Amino acid sequence: MTPRSDPRRPHASPHDIVPRVPVIADAGLGQYLQHQLDQKTKPLGSLGRLEALARQLGEILGQQQPLLVQPQLLVFAADHGLACRGVSAYPSDVTWQMVENFLAGGAAVSVLARQHGINLTVIDCGVAHDFASRPPLAPGRPQLLVRKIAHATADSSVQPAMTPAQCLQAIANGREVVRSLPGNAVLLGEMGIGNTSAAAMLFSRLAGRDIADCTGAGAGLDAPAVVRKTALLAQVLERHSDAVEPLAALAALGGFEIATMVGALLQAALERRVVLVDGFIVGAAVMVAHALEPAVLQRCVFAHRSGERGHAALLQHLDVHPLLDLQLRLGEASGAALAWPLLQSACLLLSEMASFASAGVASSRPAPLA
Amino acid sequence: MTPRSDPRRPHASPHDIVPRVPVIADAGLGQYLQHQLDQKTKPLGSLGRLEALARQLGEILGQQQPLLVQPQLLVFAADHGLACRGVSAYPSDVTWQMVENFLAGGAAVSVLARQHGINLTVIDCGVAHDFASRPPLAPGRPQLLVRKIAHATADSSVQPAMTPAQCLQAIANGREVVRSLPGNAVLLGEMGIGNTSAAAMLFSRLAGRDIADCTGAGAGLDAPAVVRKTALLAQVLERHSDAVEPLAALAALGGFEIATMVGALLQAALERRVVLVDGFIVGAAVMVAHALEPAVLQRCVFAHRSGERGHAALLQHLDVHPLLDLQLRLGEASGAALAWPLLQSACLLLSEMASFASAGVASSRPAPLA
Repeated sequence: MTPRSDPRRPHASPHDIVPRVPVIADAGLGQYLQHQLDQKTKPLGSLGRLEALARQLGEILGQQQPLLVQPQLLVFAADHGLACRGVSAYPSDVTWQMVENFLAGGAAVSVLARQHGINLTVIDCGVAHDFASRPPLAPGRPQLLVRKIAHATADSSVQPAMTPAQCLQAIANGREVVRSLPGNAVLLGEMGIGNTSAAAMLFSRLAGRDIADCTGAGAGLDAPAVVRKTALLAQVLERHSDAVEPLAALAALGGFEIATMVGALLQAALERRVVLVDGFIVGAAVMVAHALEPAVLQRCVFAHRSGERGHAALLQHLDVHPLLDLQLRLGEASGAALAWPLLQSACLLLSEMASFASAGVASSRPAPLA
Repeated sequence: MTPRSDPRRPHASPHDIVPRVPVIADAGLGQYLQHQLDQKTKPLGSLGRLEALARQLGEILGQQQPLLVQPQLLVFAADHGLACRGVSAYPSDVTWQMVENFLAGGAAVSVLARQHGINLTVIDCGVAHDFASRPPLAPGRPQLLVRKIAHATADSSVQPAMTPAQCLQAIANGREVVRSLPGNAVLLGEMGIGNTSAAAMLFSRLAGRDIADCTGAGAGLDAPAVVRKTALLAQVLERHSDAVEPLAALAALGGFEIATMVGALLQAALERRVVLVDGFIVGAAVMVAHALEPAVLQRCVFAHRSGERGHAALLQHLDVHPLLDLQLRLGEASGAALAWPLLQSACLLLSEMASFASAGVASSRPAPLA
């Protein structure tokens, strides 16, 4: 099913790079899973959202007793040419500094991945920095994969963020990264100073939403700066008004980490891995992947609704319901890592809870209320 | 500070049983904790609700680096005389059957406690069943503590659910149970067919809310049955219209598991343990404990907003914001167990994240947006 493509081939076409993602349609399995849930020692439906989650995990994995194994937390990092226009409260150097922090174990996502025993991989998709080579991979230690397209995208206020070839290469890289990792679940997150701008523009373009509804404070702009950011993004969108197809929009508006995540989403969906989606920027990658291959969405679990303006609208546009709502606005896959135990719970409840019959608990209804 | 009381003394007065719970007022510690959070390698405030949670945990424990140790999940079980009036979709026998299920490891809360390595104790506060004696306590195995006041409360539609002495005894039991257990955090949950009725009446009485706003489907009544349940509860409230003080209302309306939880809340608050509150019925116990000693509320973290009608209003009345909203309506402390990893995350982020200085990450703002 996977088209054989050579990511180093300079003129790969979208047809080589974007796989067909089949719709999962196994009504029998869904019914089986719900029937199992209904036999458990609990009132019908009383596990609320966890019941739909358990069904979805079973359907994605094609398993009657879904079991999540070797989850991979992937943080895609890149820099943005547009950052020179001051769209972020932080300088671009923070991107590489935070990559070092992820790898050294001091970032929020490092702490959370460690807490939950999840393997952490940082992918340099286009950071404006050359990382020193690392010691060999040690179990439980974060690893860095260098899949750098360039040292940051071009400034999208003056030219497309990337060339079509760069865009396809990034997607191919994302596919290759997922293909190379074990397990049946991926948690997707990102780091890139300026990337709420790229995400806002992609969401605006692909959903046909006013850019003002899509643009927020990012890492911490004040209200007047958000107004200026919005005006700048409107100009950038106008400059690239012809970039309406998903891949054209992705290339014009950037960034490399988003394009690489599109590839990771496509590959994970193709392999029927569970994809746990973090916040707004990963959400923008989902918008692109979903526009290319709608069935990607079936494989996605949305971890949280963030505090970034635009995220709630994006989730609404996709008609999806996140698990957490904690006003996070950090990125890094921090929300995905926080939601992870809920996915494990959903699986464990399905596999380990007793049934009414096995536990000898009465499931019958007494006489009606007097 | 703890009043010495003998729980077996037949005529203990409320002053012996209800301790004074001091207000925690350490502005310096709160500021210290926020300062620590602000130095971490993340945008200011970007951990959202987890930042307030980390501060609260530090303030409850009086620790600059809060560390949760030996959490105790307590499930308080009892039967309700009012259940003979058909206020539940399930027969009263389900209470003891579910207690056996908790102990055998097959209930939802058993699975979740095991997932998170939390010690599970079931307290028989007044189940209408005599449990066989258990093998000696083994590490990691759930234990049963028998603190039975009677085999179910009296039917509150014809007389008070319990006598004042029974009510005080149950509170004393709850205090003693918490005092006997190690650790600095308790997760409170319950099991008792009919106990959403007692909780709804207590909430209605103590908050002055119409009983119709407080009464829901419990374990699964249909809409007409909820209407009949509401009418019955209105009659019961009318019969006990003089029971307006917190302890009088608790005794009149029941149940034994709620009264025992009131004691557990008071003792945990006195000892400055973190109290993770599950759903609607535990919330009703918080209403009572808070009415007795307002500073109890400072020690409470609210795990989730359940699907039971009345719970959202109860949380609003207490002006508290739960961590999860997953439409659970199971009880047992299932929501508390699901929220537990978030408390651990809040502590770990505070203790393990690097600061901007230690990680060499730029925290300064670049030139303003062009």
